[in-house]
Amino acid sequence: MPIKSRIRTVPHYPKPGVMFRDITTLLKDPVGFRVTINELVNRYTGAKIDRVAGIEARGFIIGAALAYQLGVGFVPIRKKGKLPAETVGHDYDLEYGTDRIEMHVDAVSQGERVLLVDDLIATGGTAEAACKLIENMGGTLVECCFVIDLPDLGGRARLEKHGQKVFALCEFEGD
Amino acid sequence: MPIKSRIRTVPHYPKPGVMFRDITTLLKDPVGFRVTINELVNRYTGAKIDRVAGIEARGFIIGAALAYQLGVGFVPIRKKGKLPAETVGHDYDLEYGTDRIEMHVDAVSQGERVLLVDDLIATGGTAEAACKLIENMGGTLVECCFVIDLPDLGGRARLEKHGQKVFALCEFEGD
Repeated sequence: MPIKSRIRTVPHYPKPGVMFRDITTLLKDPVGFRVTINELVNRYTGAKIDRVAGIEARGFIIGAALAYQLGVGFVPIRKKGKLPAETVGHDYDLEYGTDRIEMHVDAVSQGERVLLVDDLIATGGTAEAACKLIENMGGTLVECCFVIDLPDLGGRARLEKHGQKVFALCEFEGD
Repeated sequence: MPIKSRIRTVPHYPKPGVMFRDITTLLKDPVGFRVTINELVNRYTGAKIDRVAGIEARGFIIGAALAYQLGVGFVPIRKKGKLPAETVGHDYDLEYGTDRIEMHVDAVSQGERVLLVDDLIATGGTAEAACKLIENMGGTLVECCFVIDLPDLGGRARLEKHGQKVFALCEFEGD
């Protein structure tokens, strides 16, 4: 499979025992990058998407190229304190402590159809927080879209349990 | 001018006296985003670019959409410790202290023609470090490309002094 074969595995990053799935080798390959985006464009053409929301930072890369080709606007979902204008945020639990993601208050309007994009779904904590944030702003989530799903970590199941649709271009099992 | 008029100014961010030029209002506008990327595509079509290198994090948004449409690979330039595989880095001075940017060692090969992309050039410290990093890796810099130039802060002059070509879609003076 041309996408999966271009993703590099970096063992023991960021900590021992973790197999990090690195999309930079996919992105730097002209064909790999183009096929990745085109597969998503094909999936979402005709889906009446108003906004693509990308999660900082690798979600910006996939989300921006996809938004451009779909002809829709792009809105960033950022870590706390990174956006300059008025924001709304959502706190979520980490293994130890909590984190917070934010969007500008004008990023999504009532009734807008939003596609959520990130490079990878693992436990789904950040993606779930992003879904709640978008829905709290009045947006309608069309789907949550990823390049990579790590199904053993349960993120897809977690989002689907809350009624979200989830799509990923490839899976790595055993993570 | 359609691009400049869609950029929001946030006064006193991130500190009193600074007029922050916020491209999120441009990016969320389908026409604004598309025109921004298309103007850059028109400029660089035929320029024989091998790689687009985008600076974290807003440079990912502009750089990825541009790379996609040019049909070339995208490589990220990240802050210290964010890339999973073997990196090369460049340290540079801030107003107080130093910072470091990094790329994967395989991001740019000898002789490859690289377009550097970020959303904004102010003092040019990060962009200058990125140029040095790319050249140290053997890459040839085609141009440094920005959505916004703040000419009063001297970044363009700083890069040009070192022989770089600089292009920006719009300027804000008085910053």
